[in-house]
Formats: sequence, structure tokens, C-alpha cells
Amino acid sequence: MQNCPSGLNASQKIHIKGRLHDLEVAMREVKLTDSVIDGVNHSNGTINLYDTGGIWSDAAAKADIRKGIPRLRTKWLEKRDDIVRLEAFTSEYARSRMKDKTTENLRFAHHYLPYKAKKGKAITQMALARQGIITPEMEYVAIRENMGHCDNGKTYITPEFVRREVAEGRAVIPSNINHPEAEPMIIGSKFLVKINTNIGNSALGSDIEKEVEKSIYSSLLGGDTLMDLSTGKHIHETREWIIRNCPVPMGSVPIYQALEKVDGVVEALTWELYRDTLIEQCEQGVDYFTIHAGLLKKLIPFATERLTGIVSRGGSIMAKWMQANNAENFLYTHFEDICEILSQYDVAVSLGDGLRPGSIHDANDKAQFGELATLGDLTKIAWANNVQTLIEGPGHIPMNKIKENMDKQQSLCHSAPFYTLGPLTTDIAPGYDHITSAIGAALIGWYGTAMLCYVTPKEHLGLPTKEDVREGVIAYKIAAHAADLAKGHPSAVERDDALSKARFDFRWNDQFNLALDPDRAREYFGESSHGSDFCTMCGPNFCAMRISREISQSEHNKQQ
Amino acid sequence: MQNCPSGLNASQKIHIKGRLHDLEVAMREVKLTDSVIDGVNHSNGTINLYDTGGIWSDAAAKADIRKGIPRLRTKWLEKRDDIVRLEAFTSEYARSRMKDKTTENLRFAHHYLPYKAKKGKAITQMALARQGIITPEMEYVAIRENMGHCDNGKTYITPEFVRREVAEGRAVIPSNINHPEAEPMIIGSKFLVKINTNIGNSALGSDIEKEVEKSIYSSLLGGDTLMDLSTGKHIHETREWIIRNCPVPMGSVPIYQALEKVDGVVEALTWELYRDTLIEQCEQGVDYFTIHAGLLKKLIPFATERLTGIVSRGGSIMAKWMQANNAENFLYTHFEDICEILSQYDVAVSLGDGLRPGSIHDANDKAQFGELATLGDLTKIAWANNVQTLIEGPGHIPMNKIKENMDKQQSLCHSAPFYTLGPLTTDIAPGYDHITSAIGAALIGWYGTAMLCYVTPKEHLGLPTKEDVREGVIAYKIAAHAADLAKGHPSAVERDDALSKARFDFRWNDQFNLALDPDRAREYFGESSHGSDFCTMCGPNFCAMRISREISQSEHNKQQ
Repeated sequence: MQNCPSGLNASQKIHIKGRLHDLEVAMREVKLTDSVIDGVNHSNGTINLYDTGGIWSDAAAKADIRKGIPRLRTKWLEKRDDIVRLEAFTSEYARSRMKDKTTENLRFAHHYLPYKAKKGKAITQMALARQGIITPEMEYVAIRENMGHCDNGKTYITPEFVRREVAEGRAVIPSNINHPEAEPMIIGSKFLVKINTNIGNSALGSDIEKEVEKSIYSSLLGGDTLMDLSTGKHIHETREWIIRNCPVPMGSVPIYQALEKVDGVVEALTWELYRDTLIEQCEQGVDYFTIHAGLLKKLIPFATERLTGIVSRGGSIMAKWMQANNAENFLYTHFEDICEILSQYDVAVSLGDGLRPGSIHDANDKAQFGELATLGDLTKIAWANNVQTLIEGPGHIPMNKIKENMDKQQSLCHSAPFYTLGPLTTDIAPGYDHITSAIGAALIGWYGTAMLCYVTPKEHLGLPTKEDVREGVIAYKIAAHAADLAKGHPSAVERDDALSKARFDFRWNDQFNLALDPDRAREYFGESSHGSDFCTMCGPNFCAMRISREISQSEHNKQQ
Repeated sequence: MQNCPSGLNASQKIHIKGRLHDLEVAMREVKLTDSVIDGVNHSNGTINLYDTGGIWSDAAAKADIRKGIPRLRTKWLEKRDDIVRLEAFTSEYARSRMKDKTTENLRFAHHYLPYKAKKGKAITQMALARQGIITPEMEYVAIRENMGHCDNGKTYITPEFVRREVAEGRAVIPSNINHPEAEPMIIGSKFLVKINTNIGNSALGSDIEKEVEKSIYSSLLGGDTLMDLSTGKHIHETREWIIRNCPVPMGSVPIYQALEKVDGVVEALTWELYRDTLIEQCEQGVDYFTIHAGLLKKLIPFATERLTGIVSRGGSIMAKWMQANNAENFLYTHFEDICEILSQYDVAVSLGDGLRPGSIHDANDKAQFGELATLGDLTKIAWANNVQTLIEGPGHIPMNKIKENMDKQQSLCHSAPFYTLGPLTTDIAPGYDHITSAIGAALIGWYGTAMLCYVTPKEHLGLPTKEDVREGVIAYKIAAHAADLAKGHPSAVERDDALSKARFDFRWNDQFNLALDPDRAREYFGESSHGSDFCTMCGPNFCAMRISREISQSEHNKQQ
């Protein structure tokens, strides 16, 4: 496997040491070439970029997907006295799969026994933050958010600030103790806007190798977290391969696997089966679970009145289960039990919006906001159990109704971080929903959403290919960065300024190296013929930048 | 030449008759298939779509680019007693080109002698509107904006409303009397948001045939107007081919051709040369001119202090001219003369923003807003001459600074329609600037911008290919439609609702036929295996829409 797309090779990985803890925060450093003015060279220095690729973007390192990537956080975990390593997997299903002969050839070879909280210990980042403890994870994300600038004497985000945001529930550091491969990152409205990418096979498509490849690819491109939404065969085995090679936190929707275990018969789902699935995934290393616990039975009639009903997979499964069993949502009735399990591994809960609108017509309706209010109640229960909590949001929303979503979410859910899918700002562009939704994502990110779940061009039409993943990730990196600029995040504007200066100086390589997708920029530039100080777009006589430089030079001479 | 992309064949052209005038407004009608509920068919009727393709999207008609398309408006022009047909072209340059042997083989064969205002007659749509006259063009756009709904008894936009908006300068109907091939359309904040596409060769690329092909293609995809930004050879001949085949209004930047006439030597530009170029293009049929008359000499020092100086081609040319000649911008000093010429053909002026920011860093600075104030003064002069006026806007602007642009433009420019390039909301994504700018375009469209100038993925890198034109047009149709929805334009939401209902019903073909790019949607769907009531995205067991339909059915049965 190639470690990194060629464009990233122009940069190098650097590591910035922590002050409180024994840690090294990885980022990419781009060395800029000099500007030449009147024959004199002027240094443009270097610029650090936030990097999500882990070892996969480190040209100096080697990794083998059959062995998994280095377990970065193990050394911190081993110093802790509040957790313990188990002698066997707790989940019956996990144990049975380990012994299963038919999947032996698919199985990831290197298993690690799971960590778990010692009895009576509150071990989550939230619990520790509330005790006033600044963990290595907190210091790591502080340095990471600043892109190393805290060493320049300009401190933007302090470890103590991170601690306080986590303690208050306004930010989440997804960090299952069984996924020590993941680099710490933070999700909260006062930090850089993050993006999530989805991968996963369905009953009809893709295989394990392709999914692992896509997961690495999405991290290399800039995906901050990754959800495995597999619904086909071998979910357990696929997930193991992905987690062991995944440098970013991973999320899942456990109800999908639970449903596979009962062969797709919704009525046959039980709490016991679901519970075992949760534990199976906690011990494998999933960092956050989408749980559709807020879709109450009383809300179903509102949804059936809609133009497009229920469009959340998890939501439709739970609604069907409630209807078939004439019972309240077991994810709601067992929510305390769920939190107790999650708290023992520091798995975060992402409260799913099973009633998110699936069309412009259904935006901001009773079904949607009814569920959101319930998510607010559940947030308090999760926090009482020290479980870090995200709130999931829509969906399809016209621009003029987006702000109301953000405001309601913050007030109803006590400032817990919002994590939205898009939203798509129109329904009429199948094949281009990465764009319809990047518009909504940029807007809601600016309003305060902490993480944006990407949408690919294949949304509504099919499973994304690797190229679709690329289109989706970059569209969302754009949305997130546009939001960071609009919010005035201190380290956001630096990259724009450096790229624009390079553009004006005709330092083409610097421009490409600073781009979100260096390979694409180089490819497009290379397709056209061009000179060193113009491109085909305007040709030499009409290059405004070239003429503008002449004008500046002339003004400058006049003043002398 | 193929008349229309295959996806459009599923719809048919219909024509709605006017009541005040002898006219037929073309639109596309999509016949929807029935929904089948419990074995009973329920009609979904038809839906009309706004259509910019002219004869090129009419499967029943034939056109030949060597002959040009039908001259729709000639019959209205011939009834007018305020215009006259000239016996020869006025421009010396135009006459010399007609006789030029070297370009004979490139020349469009069918020439029409130009129309011009009779001496002393005020002939523009603005002049007529001010006299209380509802022209055929005004009735045409009223019916077009309503997508035929005025015949259903639900009148949204009346011809009188159109007249008032044009009279007050809040809307523009670009309609050079020498471009009768163009279907009337309106640009104003109270109407559907429009998009402009740019084509044109540069000294380094493309030929006439390719440019004509791109121009037709962009109209078929939904481009509302088209600017020919050619800077290479044979500008005059290329333009003739494009105009004679162009069903939408066409714009140009006359200074580009003027500069070609002096072989790229900026210093050699003169008012007389420019004047002849204006007349040449007025008599050819260009519907609006971008004129950088607001870039005053005193503003240049503000621009040279910037990170990225002047990035407008026209702006940089005029700044260089002023510097070299130590004189005020001749487009400013001769603005009255310019208006007098334009008013005789009803060519609109689009006041160019020569100082638009070319980077996030330079957004909303003194240079930019200084020029905008001058554009406001020039608007009054144009209006005094009955010249319809647009104001061009940025550029690169972070989301949080976009609203200020809109507000300032409306107050400084007396509510003249705003016409913006993007704006791009970040600089860091070369190769994806159709997306960085679609975000800004959607936002500024919602705030009230009347027309959005598209940006292709090749922006900053090279000349767009046909496929780049497609990506750019669709990204901007999305932005414009998202803005229409957010503004609550009465006929906008209908298409979203119809498409979403088709999606929920698994009426795949209806969904594709209602899509902005039916071909793309079909292609992506076709790449995946699927059944009639699910796609590979989720597979049959996890299709939320399928499950949701079962839930609704079950709720419905319960209530009976």
C-alpha cells in the first residue's frame, strides 16, 4: 500500500512535544519556496497543517495493514490505574466469531485483549475532566488545534481550556481505551470544525480490502472521524481490520449489526442481543455509537404524515420494531444501561436523529423537533454517567431554516456538540449531493456545528467508490474550513493567506502543496499549457496578477 | 449537433400563450408516472420546469449552427416605430472584418443588418417601463418566472409587477435589439436567481467550434446568460457564431477586444478605439457589457497594498493604463458617452468590479468598497440615460463578510441588481472552486443577489473543458435554487416536492427526469446493482424508505 498521495510528499511530518505529558503531536509541515523581488530572495518560511493521516501520511514510516498501525496511546493507558486488561472478550458473539472456522481466512491476525474500567472507576475523558485532570489526550488536542503555534508564544487554545469544555459537555474527545491506534482529536463548537466520513459495505457491494483502503484514503484526505456503516456480511471482521488500521476515531451504528444477527427480521431484535453487540464493539475499539434512543413511539404518527416519512435507517428499524411489538423504543427504556456499558470503555454516544427530514418539505417539523427535545433529556442521563455525548442533526433543510436547527439544538441539548449530516439545501440534484449539502454544512458549521458528516455524489443513488469518497471528503473539508474562517478560528486564515500569496507570486508548487487536494490541482494545471507567470485561463497578456505586480512595482518605484 | 442531452428527452417543450401580446413562452413539461397504492393508480400530473435551452432543448425542432437559430423577437421588433434598420454596420472595424479575406473561411455566413434607435427615441426596456408600457419582453418573463402557473388562477408575478421593477431599476431584462434570437429573461432580486456562464478562448486554447459547442451546452444545462470572454484571435468572428446560436442573453467585456486590437499594448488603448468596439459589439447583438468604469485612479494605491493586488483582468488593464498615461480611467470620464451609445441598442451595462478581492485576506477592504461607491454614482448616470444596469460583485469573501457586501451594494447602488462572481469562501481548494464558490453564491443569492456568475473546477488553473462547464453550471444551478427556496420564491419548492415524492415512491425515472442533471443521476444509479424498491446504498433490508412505507401503511390500517 502506498503510504500517501503524491501531493502530500511535498510536506513532511513533524512532531511537537507536549509539556505536561510524554507525547508528540503529529502534523504536516510545508516548506515554502522564496519569493524573489528585484532579484532578492525573501523567505516565506514554513507552515504547519493539521493532519489526519496518521502513519499513512508519514513518508518516513512504514505500515502493514496485516499487522495494524502503531498503538500510540498504549503507553498512556498503561500508566493508568483506573483500567484493567481483561483475560477474554466479554461478548459471547465476539468469542464465537474468534472460533469460527468459516471466517478464519478473513480474520485480522493480531488480537489484543480489551481494556475496561476497574470496578467503580469513572474513567472517561469527561469524568477525568470533571475531576480537574488534564489528560494526555487533552494536551494532545490543544497542541493539535493550534497547529503548533503554542510554541511561538501565541497560545490560542490551552489544555486547561480543553479540559473545561470536555467537563462541561461542550466538547467530546472520542477515545475508546480499546482503540489506542487513534490520534486524539476534539469535537466542539469552539474548536476546528471536523468532518466525518462514512464507509461500509452493504449486502450488495464491496469487500473488506476495499473498505480498509477507503478508510485509509479518507483519513489521508482529511477525514477527522470515520463511521463504519457496514450492513452486509462479516461486519465483525471488517470492523476489526478497519479499527486496527485507523488513525482516527471510528463510529458505528450498532443496531445495523444487531439486525444482521437476526437475519434482517426487525421484530426479532431484543435488548439482550443489542447489549451483547454494544459490548462486542466496545471491546473491539469503536469510539462512538450512533444510538436512536430519542425516537419515541408517540412520535411515529407525525412521521407517517410526512412527504418522505422516516429516512434514517436506524430510525426506520426502531419505528418498525415499536410498531410490531407495540412497545416503547428499547434504546430509550434501556438508556441508563447503555450509558453504564459505554462509560466503562469511554465510548461516546452520538444520539441519532431517527426522524431527520429526508426532504425540504419535511424540514423543521414536529417529528424532527419532538425527537430533538428527547435527545436533550437523554443528554442529561448520559452526562450523569460521564458518557461523552454528541447530538446528530439533519438531513434536508433549506438555508433559511438551518439557523433554527442550530439554536434549538443548543438550547434543548444543553450545548452538547452538534453533529450534522449536511444538511442538503435542495432535493433536486441527485448525483451532486456533495455540493447541495456542502452549502448547508458550511452554513451550519459557521453557526456552531462541531462536526459535519460528509455526503458523497452517490447519495440517494448507490454506494460510493473511492473517487466518490475523495469528492465527498474534499467538499466537506471546504465546508469545514469555510466555517472556521467565518468563525474566526485563530489558526484557520494562515493557510489561505499563504496559498494566496503563493498564487500571486506564481509559486505554483507552493500553491499546490498548500491545497486541500494537491494531486487534483496539479493534474488540472498540467492539463493546460502555461508559462511560469501565467496560465491558459487568461494567457500572458490578460493575466491580471502579472499586470497587477507590474502596477505595484511601478507605484513602489514612484514612492522612492 | 445533438439537440439535447438524453435526460431532457423525457420531458417535452410546451408553449404558453401571452394575453397582452402575440407570444409563446417556452418551458419544459415533465410528465410524471402514477403512484401505485394498494394496487390503485394515483396520478402525479405534470410539472413545468424553467428552461434555458431554447431550440436546442426542443426535440421536435431542428437547428443548424451554420444558419443560426430562429430570431424569436424579430416580429416584435418589426412592430416598433421607435427603431430603424441601418443600411450598413456603423463600426469601422466591423466593416473591415467583413471584407477581410484571411478570415473568410471562419466567418458566419448569414449577416443581418443592425437595428438602432430612431433619433431622439428612448427605446430601452427601462425607458418603455418608465412610460408605463408593458412590452412583450415583460409579459414573456412574467409567464416564464411563474412557470405557467398564472394560467392556473394562481398569479404569482404579473407583467405589471415586472414593468415596475424594470422602471425602478431593480430588475434588468437584457435585450439588445440586435440579438432577437435570445429568449427574454429577467435579472432582479424579486425573481428567480439566475446564473451566468463564461466561455471564450484565450491566446492559448480552444477554437470557434468548441466555443459554440460549449455555449449551447451551457444553455442546455441551465445557464441563464452567457459571457464570451475570448481574448485570443478572431474574437469578432467567434462572437458572431456564438450570438447567432445563443438562446440566452450574451455579455462581453469590450476592453478585452480593444486590447487585442492594439496587440496587447495597454498604453496604446484609446477612447476612440474603445468606442468603435462598443458600437461593433452593440450592432452584433451583445446584450450587456462589463465596463470597469468605477476603478478610479485614486483607488490604485489601496490595491497595491493588498496581498493579491488586482485580480480582475479588466481592472488590471485599466489600472495599468491610468498609471502609464497618468490619467483618469477613460471609461469613467466617458461614461456619459458610453451610456448614450448603449441606450440606442438597449444594451445593459454591468458595472465591473475591477477591485474585487482575489483572496480572503483582501475581502471587504477600502479598495473594494471605494470602487463600489463609485459604481453607485455611475448607476445614476446610466439610469438618467435609460440604460439598464447591473452591479458586479466579488470575488473571494469569507462567509461572515458576505452579508455586508449585499447590504452595501443595495444602499450604495440604489437597489440595482447585484451580479456576483461566487464569492469563493476559502482560497485553499484549487481544483474545487466550483464548490468553494457555490457556498458563497448560495448565501449571497439568499441575501438578494440577482445573478451568480459561475466558477468552474479549473478556476485559477486553466481553461474549462466541456465537462468543467457541466460541473460549474450544475454547482451554480444548485446554489441559485437553494437561494430561491430560502427566499421562498413561489414556484421553487414545487420541483423539490415532486422529486422527493418520486424518491419515496421509488419512481426512479421521475426522480431522474426532475433532477438538475438527469444524465448524471442515471449514470450513477446505473453503476450500482439495485432492485425496484432499494438501491445499493443500503440494500433491501436497510432501506429506510421501504421500511418507512411499511410503517405508514401499518399506521394507516390501524386507523381504519
